[in-house]
Amino acid sequence: MYVIGERINGMFADVKKAIQEKNAQTIQDLARRQLAAGATALDLNVGPASGDAKGAMMWLVQTVRAVCDAPLAIDTAKWDVMQAVIPQVPGEKILNSTKADIEIATEYVALAAAHDAGLIGLTIDADGVPGSLDKRVELGAQILAVAMEGGLPMEKVFIDPIILPVNVSPKTPLHCMQAIAQLKNFADPPPHLLLGLSNVSQRCTNRSLINRTYLAMCIGAGLDAAIMDPLDTELMDSSITAELLLEKMIYCDSYLAAARGK
Amino acid sequence: MYVIGERINGMFADVKKAIQEKNAQTIQDLARRQLAAGATALDLNVGPASGDAKGAMMWLVQTVRAVCDAPLAIDTAKWDVMQAVIPQVPGEKILNSTKADIEIATEYVALAAAHDAGLIGLTIDADGVPGSLDKRVELGAQILAVAMEGGLPMEKVFIDPIILPVNVSPKTPLHCMQAIAQLKNFADPPPHLLLGLSNVSQRCTNRSLINRTYLAMCIGAGLDAAIMDPLDTELMDSSITAELLLEKMIYCDSYLAAARGK
Repeated sequence: MYVIGERINGMFADVKKAIQEKNAQTIQDLARRQLAAGATALDLNVGPASGDAKGAMMWLVQTVRAVCDAPLAIDTAKWDVMQAVIPQVPGEKILNSTKADIEIATEYVALAAAHDAGLIGLTIDADGVPGSLDKRVELGAQILAVAMEGGLPMEKVFIDPIILPVNVSPKTPLHCMQAIAQLKNFADPPPHLLLGLSNVSQRCTNRSLINRTYLAMCIGAGLDAAIMDPLDTELMDSSITAELLLEKMIYCDSYLAAARGK
Repeated sequence: MYVIGERINGMFADVKKAIQEKNAQTIQDLARRQLAAGATALDLNVGPASGDAKGAMMWLVQTVRAVCDAPLAIDTAKWDVMQAVIPQVPGEKILNSTKADIEIATEYVALAAAHDAGLIGLTIDADGVPGSLDKRVELGAQILAVAMEGGLPMEKVFIDPIILPVNVSPKTPLHCMQAIAQLKNFADPPPHLLLGLSNVSQRCTNRSLINRTYLAMCIGAGLDAAIMDPLDTELMDSSITAELLLEKMIYCDSYLAAARGK
């Protein structure tokens, strides 16, 4: 499982404060702890409140890169921030994210390809998040087509069918699972299929239970990547166990520790 | 989810002893507790050690029927026991189980149809448990065909693709998931798809974790019934949450209690 740690995000109060105060230790601590818990990559998001988004993102990149080599997912909706930051990120990086509109996706694919970066593509276009399964699949396929034309290899592409909270949009969890299963077959080798997992349980009780149950279901359907909280031990246990059950690893009594590289 | 409580089985020491001593209270307690925890039906199995299997099974049936109206799954591999007991079970009942060989399945289907009973059909034949997905599906389809010819409606049929322990047969969990997804489409309305869930984790550590993760994955694939332990609260939580995420119920903050009818 390609786990992108979600915790370095200005939406969290501790991270917001650390960005404001340029408190590197808080950020580096979160980086180290997420990687130790099994994260493959780290998402970096300065949050909505930041005045100098470009400067704040560069500070996050440098602060985290000082303590790890993990791929960094530059999480911003602002094209000017993405364009300015990506060329300056040392090591592996991922653009998070493009929408599916062809003109927009073409620019993001070119930027990703030019810097050997990964790209997360959301199945959303000018009309918003699709209400149907078919439209999700169509927009996912559109991103894949743009990536192929732009020379971005499938192993660099992460399609995100956009999960919405189950209490707001009860049909979306099933649609996303079905979109994952379908889009997995659209290329060989396939692209990554990814979810911003925590969103499924926004404003729900039992958030961790809902997250880990849905993660197991989606891994069964073909999900192989998620932006999620690796510090949620039960969630990571579910992820590792689901992959064991798909024979992505062989059982041993200490398979949970083995999968975490411990 | 059609949960068939697995706990009244002579493989468990407490049940074995209760059968030997004709201790009704232990058995009735297990019946009540499993139903209170959310079981739909109760499996009854006298275990391998019982001398008078027929008498022991009838005692279990009468003992449990005295305290509940839930469907009873008569779990025996012996045709003479099944034939003798089924006509004497008051109320709803399920034959657990037939194999897929046509001659054998035809007899079980006839007995089930004659008594308006459910029937669990295992995807196993004279050659044993299939090593391939295709054979599992073929044997499942064979049971469905016999059931249709014998006039047993699909809602009375439970196809069990036979899960094996992940530490012994690492490919089987995926095969069973895929068989579930395929067999679900072989009739409309579809048959039930069922697993003897606990078997996936035999002699593993983290049994409950493996069981509940696999259950969520299989529900995502189309599983709608399982012989399992309803007294494992986390397992039941996973089951209920997985069905919530398939929109089989609508979210409310107390959905776990609501699903348990509390």
